Amino acid sequence: MSNLIIRKESSIPKEDVTAFNSTRTTIQWLTSEKDKEAKYFAMRRFVVQPGGHIGLHHHPWEHEIYVLSGHGKLLDDAGNEHEVGSGDAIIVPGEIMHAYEVVGDEPFVFLCNTPHSSLYE
Amino acid sequence: MSNLIIRKESSIPKEDVTAFNSTRTTIQWLTSEKDKEAKYFAMRRFVVQPGGHIGLHHHPWEHEIYVLSGHGKLLDDAGNEHEVGSGDAIIVPGEIMHAYEVVGDEPFVFLCNTPHSSLYE
Repeated sequence: MSNLIIRKESSIPKEDVTAFNSTRTTIQWLTSEKDKEAKYFAMRRFVVQPGGHIGLHHHPWEHEIYVLSGHGKLLDDAGNEHEVGSGDAIIVPGEIMHAYEVVGDEPFVFLCNTPHSSLYE
Repeated sequence: MSNLIIRKESSIPKEDVTAFNSTRTTIQWLTSEKDKEAKYFAMRRFVVQPGGHIGLHHHPWEHEIYVLSGHGKLLDDAGNEHEVGSGDAIIVPGEIMHAYEVVGDEPFVFLCNTPHSSLYE
């Protein structure tokens, strides 16, 4: 019996992301609002395959992102492109338009941590 | 000019962790309470060198951890040991005693995301 919750990444289903006209993208909810011990935020792992993207969108809550592997491009609402890679940390503030694209031939893999949307209701 | 905040991991100082009798451990604050855009939680990257550990401690806030590389052992307040490795996600609920040790010859590297302690005051 333990008080710790330990999850193997490989045991967590990969769901296709289709919102915002996204393509070739999966999400794994490593933690979520359903975890009563995770009071404020969720950890999600995204994999965007080469040629894929997550379309432009915005929402009231921020993202705190950590790039695990590969290279990608973040697009912001000023039309700027920002190339990022493994080991980069990114804050996408609330309400900022943002999109993601893969750069190169490798999957772009990142953790996207985000406050529970219920905190903004 | 961009609304996104992007930080190279290599540009963030590594601070020695000495609390809780910890040894051979560094922390990098990738984001923190000082970031007004990061309203609820911080991302920290820990590196524990072989032979190192973070001593037993507890606090009101939870951790949401993602193991980046290497292998480690988490100890809980029931005296159990849990071996974890790359790709494992862990929730350490608030107030639970916990400690970390390296297993093997590689550094044990993990992200430890945690709500701002001010949310618990």
